[in-house]
Amino acid sequence: MTHNTESLMHRAVQLAGRGLYTTMPNPRVGCVIADNSGAIVGEGWHRRAGLPHAEIEALRDAGERARGATAYVTLEPCSHTGKTGPCAEALVAAGVSRVVYGMEDPNPAVSGQGLQILRDAGIEVEGPVLEEACRALNPGFIKRMTLGLPLVRSKSAMSLDGRTGMASGESKWVTGPAARADVQRLRARSCAIVTGVDTVRFDNPNLNVRADEMALEMLAAEQAAEVQPLRVIVDSRLRTPARAFILRGDAPTLVCTTAQADPARRERLEKAGAEVLVLPAGGDGRVDLLALLQELARRECNEVLVESGATLSGEFLYRGHVDELIVYMAPKLLGSTARPLFELPIERMGSVLPITITDMRAVGHDWRITATTDIER
Amino acid sequence: MTHNTESLMHRAVQLAGRGLYTTMPNPRVGCVIADNSGAIVGEGWHRRAGLPHAEIEALRDAGERARGATAYVTLEPCSHTGKTGPCAEALVAAGVSRVVYGMEDPNPAVSGQGLQILRDAGIEVEGPVLEEACRALNPGFIKRMTLGLPLVRSKSAMSLDGRTGMASGESKWVTGPAARADVQRLRARSCAIVTGVDTVRFDNPNLNVRADEMALEMLAAEQAAEVQPLRVIVDSRLRTPARAFILRGDAPTLVCTTAQADPARRERLEKAGAEVLVLPAGGDGRVDLLALLQELARRECNEVLVESGATLSGEFLYRGHVDELIVYMAPKLLGSTARPLFELPIERMGSVLPITITDMRAVGHDWRITATTDIER
Repeated sequence: MTHNTESLMHRAVQLAGRGLYTTMPNPRVGCVIADNSGAIVGEGWHRRAGLPHAEIEALRDAGERARGATAYVTLEPCSHTGKTGPCAEALVAAGVSRVVYGMEDPNPAVSGQGLQILRDAGIEVEGPVLEEACRALNPGFIKRMTLGLPLVRSKSAMSLDGRTGMASGESKWVTGPAARADVQRLRARSCAIVTGVDTVRFDNPNLNVRADEMALEMLAAEQAAEVQPLRVIVDSRLRTPARAFILRGDAPTLVCTTAQADPARRERLEKAGAEVLVLPAGGDGRVDLLALLQELARRECNEVLVESGATLSGEFLYRGHVDELIVYMAPKLLGSTARPLFELPIERMGSVLPITITDMRAVGHDWRITATTDIER
Repeated sequence: MTHNTESLMHRAVQLAGRGLYTTMPNPRVGCVIADNSGAIVGEGWHRRAGLPHAEIEALRDAGERARGATAYVTLEPCSHTGKTGPCAEALVAAGVSRVVYGMEDPNPAVSGQGLQILRDAGIEVEGPVLEEACRALNPGFIKRMTLGLPLVRSKSAMSLDGRTGMASGESKWVTGPAARADVQRLRARSCAIVTGVDTVRFDNPNLNVRADEMALEMLAAEQAAEVQPLRVIVDSRLRTPARAFILRGDAPTLVCTTAQADPARRERLEKAGAEVLVLPAGGDGRVDLLALLQELARRECNEVLVESGATLSGEFLYRGHVDELIVYMAPKLLGSTARPLFELPIERMGSVLPITITDMRAVGHDWRITATTDIER
């Protein structure tokens, strides 16, 4: 069976997607090698940081058939010597005659250098092809490389009337099991989960990825759960209890606080296994969220999931730090005294936050709304 | 071209739908006459109260070809002498040999009588066929005939975070033009629009059907606007201003109040053209909503649209009077100090109102959520 350029790149995008939960901090990349008739002779994808890049995997799969063939790769082949050597040079060495790429390297310091190595070796280079789909594989990696900030998703669950729980604090699962499995998959693709100290104190969540709750094929789920996201608590005054669930388990936990925090509390949390980091405070004395996001980018976090109450989620939104809103809407009414979706002190119609709904779909009996914010940064 | 029983009934359902905005207080009914080969020889639908029923229209269209043919009609032919005579007898007189019906007459006092007339005349009777689709044409008529109450729809417009306007009272259109056209069509299919006195005082709406805002073909829109729904104000203390827009125009306006209301105010509103009706008061001194709905059913209202603020809509919901919720969700965040969707004083998770989302679709840049309530009555 033969294929054209776009369908071969589409296959490479599919392969890249297999690394959705496991490549971080690296990007998800897929590669297809096809002979001159368009027949696929090799496939590969990046599986996990430390393991070979997609091109190396595909070249190994193709073997001698790579000579004179075309490589379709979702991201410009790297030019630097990483753990598995520069992929551009490996493609040259394997004797491929043409390389089709999906997008250039988003790191401005090296962008184009891999393609130049190929061209200098006499390889025909074509692209970008299916650029939008290739970019969509790595929104967080691209943002980190270009802006020095991670992509921020805010996840909430609400009733149809926009409420998250009772005013009394009484709460239950608002959404059903399919939505909760969807949240597990959101966590698994994230490099960090950010929450607030009040959520830790009142809900005592684990905020980890649990293979048996992802509703994925078991091997894929187990591999995903091997790469646990960093758990981050925004805790300006270090009120996190030392016995909170979030401090246990295999995943690391980072407690972000300010210089005002009590050193004794810091010591207690460090003894419980947490890393405590002092960050600059904003004018309100609380952890500056931009400084937090810059720190997470320094730690190579691509996608960050904010799973917190209305106050912290609202502050992320209000300060313009949220790229994507994910809201699960349950088919119930919690009423007007129940808790709001986001604490957002907007007083005038002129100040409302416009968003763009990019996806709406049923998830079990609930609905998942995905939106991008149109907020200036 | 020949057709089978279901496709001919489906055609009759389509024809019935042409009367969506104009048949009230009668039901929407369609009729197809087909010969023994399944070829359509006549079509008709009920256009408007006072004009012929669907069967009469279809028989006229078929003429002599009705003899020996089959009539497909969405609702059991009537047995009573209405303005155009009993349809069952007209079918007998025209010599049809077979009648396929979609649903029996929902009026328990006459249900089955039309079919009996046909059978007594030796006509073969088959049905119900496509009953669900036939019932969906007339949810309000069916509820009125069976329960003595109209179908109640509650319509609201909110932001993604479940808010309808600023706390200050400052408001603007929350939703866009496509959603507003959709509301015009909702009004047009309703027999009455119910609102609260505060909405009249603060928003001063017309609550009429405007042909040029329906986004329908002009002739259909003009015909729809000729049948204006009754405008109903729930106004327990008669605070409606005599110069409110809702008292003007061609549509009638009914102001529902209690025995406590000031007679001088009553006189002023009646002079302004309104009908003022005293209804029983509930324990809180306000108009009893069940009494109001019974009164609207007595006035032959099939479908009633509640277009009001959070207080009255919340009370209709809380008391279990709402059959269908329609919520337009705009892609914006109004924030946590903004007005709630419904005033619903729910204190415990055990008391939340479960609903079932039956439809979710994009309407311009907004989304329309349709839900049925699962509330016991």
